[in-house]
Amino acid sequence: MQGLWLENQELKLRDDLSIPEPATDEALVRVLQAGICNTDLELLKGYYPYTGIIGHEFVGEVVQGPEHLQGQRVVGEINAACGQCDYCRRQQPTHCQQRTVLGIVNRHGAFAEYLTLPTANLHRVPDALTTETATFTEPLAAALEIQEQIPIHPQDRVLVVGDGKLGQLVAQSLALTGCQLLVLGRHPAKLANLTAQGIATGLADAVCDRTFDIAVECTGNPQGFESARRALRPRGTLVLKSTYAGRLSIDASALVVDEITLIGSRCGPFAKALDILAKGVVNVSSLIQAIYPLSQGLDAFSVAQQRGSQKILLSMNQ
Amino acid sequence: MQGLWLENQELKLRDDLSIPEPATDEALVRVLQAGICNTDLELLKGYYPYTGIIGHEFVGEVVQGPEHLQGQRVVGEINAACGQCDYCRRQQPTHCQQRTVLGIVNRHGAFAEYLTLPTANLHRVPDALTTETATFTEPLAAALEIQEQIPIHPQDRVLVVGDGKLGQLVAQSLALTGCQLLVLGRHPAKLANLTAQGIATGLADAVCDRTFDIAVECTGNPQGFESARRALRPRGTLVLKSTYAGRLSIDASALVVDEITLIGSRCGPFAKALDILAKGVVNVSSLIQAIYPLSQGLDAFSVAQQRGSQKILLSMNQ
Repeated sequence: MQGLWLENQELKLRDDLSIPEPATDEALVRVLQAGICNTDLELLKGYYPYTGIIGHEFVGEVVQGPEHLQGQRVVGEINAACGQCDYCRRQQPTHCQQRTVLGIVNRHGAFAEYLTLPTANLHRVPDALTTETATFTEPLAAALEIQEQIPIHPQDRVLVVGDGKLGQLVAQSLALTGCQLLVLGRHPAKLANLTAQGIATGLADAVCDRTFDIAVECTGNPQGFESARRALRPRGTLVLKSTYAGRLSIDASALVVDEITLIGSRCGPFAKALDILAKGVVNVSSLIQAIYPLSQGLDAFSVAQQRGSQKILLSMNQ
Repeated sequence: MQGLWLENQELKLRDDLSIPEPATDEALVRVLQAGICNTDLELLKGYYPYTGIIGHEFVGEVVQGPEHLQGQRVVGEINAACGQCDYCRRQQPTHCQQRTVLGIVNRHGAFAEYLTLPTANLHRVPDALTTETATFTEPLAAALEIQEQIPIHPQDRVLVVGDGKLGQLVAQSLALTGCQLLVLGRHPAKLANLTAQGIATGLADAVCDRTFDIAVECTGNPQGFESARRALRPRGTLVLKSTYAGRLSIDASALVVDEITLIGSRCGPFAKALDILAKGVVNVSSLIQAIYPLSQGLDAFSVAQQRGSQKILLSMNQ
């Protein structure tokens, strides 16, 4: 089969890949569409030493699996857990220490014609949802993880730093809480997209120091971290939502003096994300910049790597 | 009066200082004894640009103030708050944005014969407590702040990194919760001091990766931070208890992937600290290395600056 193969930080389109064999309790999924995420771009930069097919945001159709899923459109949680360790028993499979992660750690990913995942990871896509929209389930779930980790109230002043793909989903998901939200970014067109949805926005340097209860860092760069940090009131909470290639230099004394809480945030609840997408209260279609066939996957990555690009999807049907 | 004056990172013993005039709602306190804290040493290194008398851990006697405190031995909370801002109204005076801080920010400190503080900041020292013991009220309160910020349960595996002055108080205060405690340090004699109190200890490199629910960083150096970070399980909590001169380089992606919570922790509850000291359940006398008269304050600082030194006290009676 065809797929995008990463090796030594070089991405190749290969036609000689074997269709994967599902293990017991796994399903074989024909990929319909997949999204390029910043984590994929970080993998190309060497964020994590991975060799294999990349890609983890997808919608597919089950071609081999349990009867109730056969022929169904599905999305899939990306962490394949052992089911037996402390974390699995505590219902935290995303932290299973033996886990493989689709297209990231020891498991071939979604930028290919087929993938396998444990059946337990799959969620049926409601018929009313288009495949394009459902491709955003994984990143929207990650955005919703913030609300799983910290309670957000209508009176909370919440800042989102970054107007990129992740920032837009984080902002829209936070807006559903009714909190007092402001999004800072560097791209007027992207900010306008949020303004059109009734979300307050500002250019990146417009931040007022020490005024926000919660700040969510969605840029993955040190300037974004500093903006988020400076915007927080004492005893505020800084949510780190981006993976960073390389190390981050922080003013640790300021965190101590202001008793700031910093919290890392990763994968989130798929069922809630599907529910929100089905309700149509988060607009994802405006985030799609282009859809490329898998055979043009390398071009798709070139575009995705351009500064300021929006979501690039790969379609396996064409 | 005599006092230790910091200016341009140089400490001087001065004899020409004026006895401070208490403002309305303030008391004039004759200092009996004061402790040198790592924050004082950081101020000498330029951690914060302060000019004036330093020192913030003290026991004194009220010589001018309200009747009920007149002639009483007192300790004092170090943040003098405005009483009117958002933080003061939320009962968070330690974060008042107009605050002065004894011997740290815009308020002369305790390494002198007299100081002034708001009457509301003063706590009477129980008669049963020696002045030496009560001098540890401020740092013990800071150690207890951890328990104000995060619940600690008997089943929690808690690591303290650092066996210095702060680490010893943090460890002893955490031991009172009955948690599963381990203290890592580099000084066998200091660790032995904790072992004698029934606290498990290990040499600094003995840390097991990814096993602790909570890690408290008490070294103020990057290696200590890394040890604490590595020791944490996914979704664990890292408490930053030390002020750092300069910036700290962190692996932000690891915080995100493991969804670590990092929390800065500063000043704490004086009443609880006095209560614990009065009960005699925290041993502070073993932490005292030497007591110097104020007139030998510069020598006292030289000793305090030596690597591995314990608590150095200044006595204003001699």
